[in-house]
Amino acid sequence: MREYFQVITQSEKSSARIGLLHTPHGTVKTPVFMPVGTQGSVKALSPEDLREHNVSMILCNTYHLYLRPGHKLIAGLGGLHKFMNWHGPILTDSGGFQVYSLSKLRSIEEDGVLFQSHLDGSRHFLTPELAMEIQGDLGSDIAMILDDCPAYPCDLQRAKTSVKITLKWAKRAKLSKRCEDQALFGIVQGSVYKELRIKCLEGLMEMGFDGYAIGGLAVGEDRALRFQVLEDLVPLLPKDKPRYLMGVGTPLEILKAVKLGIDMFDCVLPTRNARNGSLFTSQGRLNIRNSCHAMDKSPCDPECNCYTCRNYSRAYLRHLYVSKELLAYRLGTIHNVAFYTRLMERVTKAIEADSLSSLERELEPYNNEEV
Amino acid sequence: MREYFQVITQSEKSSARIGLLHTPHGTVKTPVFMPVGTQGSVKALSPEDLREHNVSMILCNTYHLYLRPGHKLIAGLGGLHKFMNWHGPILTDSGGFQVYSLSKLRSIEEDGVLFQSHLDGSRHFLTPELAMEIQGDLGSDIAMILDDCPAYPCDLQRAKTSVKITLKWAKRAKLSKRCEDQALFGIVQGSVYKELRIKCLEGLMEMGFDGYAIGGLAVGEDRALRFQVLEDLVPLLPKDKPRYLMGVGTPLEILKAVKLGIDMFDCVLPTRNARNGSLFTSQGRLNIRNSCHAMDKSPCDPECNCYTCRNYSRAYLRHLYVSKELLAYRLGTIHNVAFYTRLMERVTKAIEADSLSSLERELEPYNNEEV
Repeated sequence: MREYFQVITQSEKSSARIGLLHTPHGTVKTPVFMPVGTQGSVKALSPEDLREHNVSMILCNTYHLYLRPGHKLIAGLGGLHKFMNWHGPILTDSGGFQVYSLSKLRSIEEDGVLFQSHLDGSRHFLTPELAMEIQGDLGSDIAMILDDCPAYPCDLQRAKTSVKITLKWAKRAKLSKRCEDQALFGIVQGSVYKELRIKCLEGLMEMGFDGYAIGGLAVGEDRALRFQVLEDLVPLLPKDKPRYLMGVGTPLEILKAVKLGIDMFDCVLPTRNARNGSLFTSQGRLNIRNSCHAMDKSPCDPECNCYTCRNYSRAYLRHLYVSKELLAYRLGTIHNVAFYTRLMERVTKAIEADSLSSLERELEPYNNEEV
Repeated sequence: MREYFQVITQSEKSSARIGLLHTPHGTVKTPVFMPVGTQGSVKALSPEDLREHNVSMILCNTYHLYLRPGHKLIAGLGGLHKFMNWHGPILTDSGGFQVYSLSKLRSIEEDGVLFQSHLDGSRHFLTPELAMEIQGDLGSDIAMILDDCPAYPCDLQRAKTSVKITLKWAKRAKLSKRCEDQALFGIVQGSVYKELRIKCLEGLMEMGFDGYAIGGLAVGEDRALRFQVLEDLVPLLPKDKPRYLMGVGTPLEILKAVKLGIDMFDCVLPTRNARNGSLFTSQGRLNIRNSCHAMDKSPCDPECNCYTCRNYSRAYLRHLYVSKELLAYRLGTIHNVAFYTRLMERVTKAIEADSLSSLERELEPYNNEEV
């Protein structure tokens, strides 16, 4: 297996590190935040919007693209990068999480999971091999193994089954891997049970993956519990491989996870919030629809240099949102995504200067935020 | 009154002409098509999208901006250009047409028109003076007089009243004009009655306006009747002033109107159609949602060089529309607006080469289109 991840800076005061992730579509500096392009489009943004605001990598959803327009169609058109005109790295999830969170009639079997499409009720059987085939056809830079991701709260027995199935499927995913250029990440399950998490990780490490993801968090458990799992688990992850915390999170959570040694993040928070008019600023989140912004000439965040803040007042943004103008969603999403990329740049600088604690204080307005 | 319109080329085979319209926000070459930015945003597009696709001038709606966010608010923020970050010329209509087409409880009185907001049912009284005050606060480059725009069909008596009121209000609008830099156009009403149209025009010419618009067309009358009105009326319009056909139209209608000597157009057709997935091409309109485009690698229109056609396949566009992705509306609108600006460039070249008839044959696919 080729070397594609290097740690270039290791913090002395914490486990935080800066790394380089080499992919067929370019090198990504970590820690990295990946905006979510569920259906082959980061909602409301063009690829140029992403590039102009320093997004280096995005995530797309295997579940959605499998159901519509279909992986064979995308393969026939030259793969996902060409299809959506995004020529930077793409990570695809395996569909596991969406099968559990979006679809109906889930039944986990020995071989895979039977589910009903949330679009038309059609029945599908997703196996570890099919998840790899789909991701192979999409041509993503990083594929994820199909995992069994139970809902929270999850009793010990269910969590044991989840780890057993996840390990079994991980092995099959690895055996069915076809694309040499595509990295494959394992996913650690085990809910909030330390022994199960460790058992799952050890099983995965024995098989050997290009990176290790922590799944099954940010699914309803409280934050203290979430960070307890991370504190127990992250020190055991291989130091020479990228570590990816799936579905997390708020600005402060990202910083805390970076301190523990996490390299990669994805979350719908910046994009979904933007569509609701909830915008991230250096002073905390603001609801731009609020009438207090009606006559405000100032930009959304005076400390921000994104396209939206350079060109539009809060008053205009509020007008667009209240009037349900389509431009609102693009301008808001640009701003929130830019907030997250700038956050990651600040985090990186703080690792270099070993000053993460002072950055943590600056992110205090986000202390009470939840994913 | 300062000279702000010059005819620079006059076709020999028709009444078509090329002109230059000088405004405080730049010079516009005519014939010109103005995309509609109803609420202070050309739906789904940024000002950069407009500029990159050669849009030189846009139209905004006084009725909508008066109701929300309010002209005083926009004036307080430095005017409409600054508010929406569009620094090219803007024409504002007077609100007359929207009062008749969108609002409830309309009652035309001596002094103005009483109506109920389509947003919240609140009652408002729009007078010729208020329409000028609103447009003055917005700071548009061209303002329109408040006119009485009756529904179609319209009997002779109602049409007579409309002309009488329109002329009376035109005079009051002119008297209440405050901004020296803002041009003011008269609007010719009179429904489909030639004598009334001529009477209205003569009354307006006596007062003297910076340009003359033809209102009350494209409101349901058939196309033959519409063009009969234009054939009767346009030759009588002053040759040294811009002529604006309001709310029209399809590509072929625009070309035919240019041949009769019209200089300015606006229409929601390209933007509204785009949001429905109906895209203009050199081969006629296509519905991009149609399943025949599902695997089509080709661009929407091979003859188009817009951002959308340079970067995306029909297959991807269809996927975005079917999946209701926000990017769909922007990409489709960019394409349709670019089609219209290119149409106007082709019309201009055809006037220069006196070859409008051959362009008319190229637009044959649009023969059966209606506004």
